Amino acid sequence: MKIARFKFSSAVTTVHFNSSISRLAKLAGKSRAIIITDENVYAAHSGKLRGWDVIVLKTGEEFKVQETVDAVLMQLIRMEADRETLLVGVGGGVITDLTGFVAAIYMRGLAFGFVPTSLLALVDAAIGGKNGIDVGPYKNMVGTIRQPAFILHDLSLLNSLPETEWRNGMAEVVKHACIHNRLMFDKLKVLTIPALRRNRKKLSDLVFENATFKLKLVQRDEWERGERKKLNFGHTLGHAIENQYEISHGEAISIGMMAACRISEEILGFHEKEEVKMLLEKFGLPTSALYNREKIFQVLAMDKKRQGATIQFILLKKIGRAQIQKIPLARLKTYLEQK
Amino acid sequence: MKIARFKFSSAVTTVHFNSSISRLAKLAGKSRAIIITDENVYAAHSGKLRGWDVIVLKTGEEFKVQETVDAVLMQLIRMEADRETLLVGVGGGVITDLTGFVAAIYMRGLAFGFVPTSLLALVDAAIGGKNGIDVGPYKNMVGTIRQPAFILHDLSLLNSLPETEWRNGMAEVVKHACIHNRLMFDKLKVLTIPALRRNRKKLSDLVFENATFKLKLVQRDEWERGERKKLNFGHTLGHAIENQYEISHGEAISIGMMAACRISEEILGFHEKEEVKMLLEKFGLPTSALYNREKIFQVLAMDKKRQGATIQFILLKKIGRAQIQKIPLARLKTYLEQK
Repeated sequence: MKIARFKFSSAVTTVHFNSSISRLAKLAGKSRAIIITDENVYAAHSGKLRGWDVIVLKTGEEFKVQETVDAVLMQLIRMEADRETLLVGVGGGVITDLTGFVAAIYMRGLAFGFVPTSLLALVDAAIGGKNGIDVGPYKNMVGTIRQPAFILHDLSLLNSLPETEWRNGMAEVVKHACIHNRLMFDKLKVLTIPALRRNRKKLSDLVFENATFKLKLVQRDEWERGERKKLNFGHTLGHAIENQYEISHGEAISIGMMAACRISEEILGFHEKEEVKMLLEKFGLPTSALYNREKIFQVLAMDKKRQGATIQFILLKKIGRAQIQKIPLARLKTYLEQK
Repeated sequence: MKIARFKFSSAVTTVHFNSSISRLAKLAGKSRAIIITDENVYAAHSGKLRGWDVIVLKTGEEFKVQETVDAVLMQLIRMEADRETLLVGVGGGVITDLTGFVAAIYMRGLAFGFVPTSLLALVDAAIGGKNGIDVGPYKNMVGTIRQPAFILHDLSLLNSLPETEWRNGMAEVVKHACIHNRLMFDKLKVLTIPALRRNRKKLSDLVFENATFKLKLVQRDEWERGERKKLNFGHTLGHAIENQYEISHGEAISIGMMAACRISEEILGFHEKEEVKMLLEKFGLPTSALYNREKIFQVLAMDKKRQGATIQFILLKKIGRAQIQKIPLARLKTYLEQK
């Protein structure tokens, strides 16, 4: 167990690495906390949530929408939640995104914390304060940036995680290596998902390294004015195809990263695309897809990273070195068509 | 004309007192700004909004709800609003609350400014960064606190303001005097609404004094941890009856202020209730109402100022001196019943 504090503009986030959900009672009194989770997590861990007030939502990205927010808000009113109430999101990225958003807007803001239950939430989604919901095909179109009071890691919660969720998490881990550090990338070449599931030490090292990398990067650029944008590597195209084709987030950004690698080849002379491809495939992730390029381009044109007629794209100069590049939408369209 | 800058935690608000809406083009380029207004304001001032992108909403507090937010968000997507877009709320308190909220959550936050078109918005609603929407009978249950980039005053916009709206604004002006300053209170005794409508100098002095008072108070306590709570004088009961009985905000808080005066008599020995009553009546505001106390108490119990079994109430020690008082809900109920 290891506790670290990360100071952000308006809050301090305490991260409890390699800890246990049994510590939750110390972080949040049962009388003033309300847990928000989903049916899958609740079914797998209901014993650990006994004695807490719990709101259980349906599982899946398709429920990360305003209707669910409306339902949670009404539930909070019925439970007489007030400004002293602490919301705790126990789940994957959908639950942490929804919980953070509800906490940001209910009574103009409640404190909140997270217990991530997926690899993806541990290394990525629970970190950085971005919250939000989808609007039609547009991912995270509505939301705020607001930091949690705590993030509590309990790696034993991953015991019930299906194989596809491990792949999802590894997509973000590969992303971190691609934009940050060749050494991280090379270490991943000798790692497998079965080894992570078997070996708690390997898993906790990987989670610690990746979570700490993102926490520090967000600290340096909380409002995404510069460096933080690099975390969007693979996400611009990824988000556009994710909700259109109902594929998982990891699969979508894996395809998005490969597309960004191809564009990096053309614009920056990047020449390590095959290495990225091999690593993604080793973790069971797709690296290409047949999709309706016209339809995807329409969604891309509404991406939050668009600025007028250009879009900010994250490209690789080499593995471990990312670069923010403005690409005219028209040119991006031809890149997509070449494929 | 007078320009003043007020620094808040995450933004600076530039306030253009006694200016003109024709200056809007300097503050917000037509190509990147979108105006949000309502049907009444648009009908009265459409000439002044020519050439701007405008979203026109139905008029009234009953539209300050999530359905309207949903519609505005879809409209922004259709108009291809991006992170560089500036939203400008041109209207009264409903429009500034809605615009501020949409700007807080669209793409995780756009910059925004206000052109208040009612006395109430000039002296109160456009100031302080609180935004939000109602949920059922609960006023402002959902929202955030986020400061506008600018507030632009054009007092000529009040020419089309109906009498009832002048009374609404004066309710907040009386509130400011009650909680802040006996001198402000005495000056109001010799002021009338017809005089304000006739005499631009009297109006601009009143707006400047009241807007500046609130701006400085919010600067000292942006997150409402202490002093800012005093601005809730009359609002706890006021909000509870406002949406239940579809009376105007000014009428509701006038009734709420008188109830707070009565409770102040009992708890703090306040003895100037009749003076407050006379002033409110002079501005055509109601000072009592027959309402279903049981029903109102249910709504009160969900007020944002509730903390467990107590509620924070603003009482007067004397005119010009307010005090934050925790009152047990059970005791509040007997006060309401006595009336």
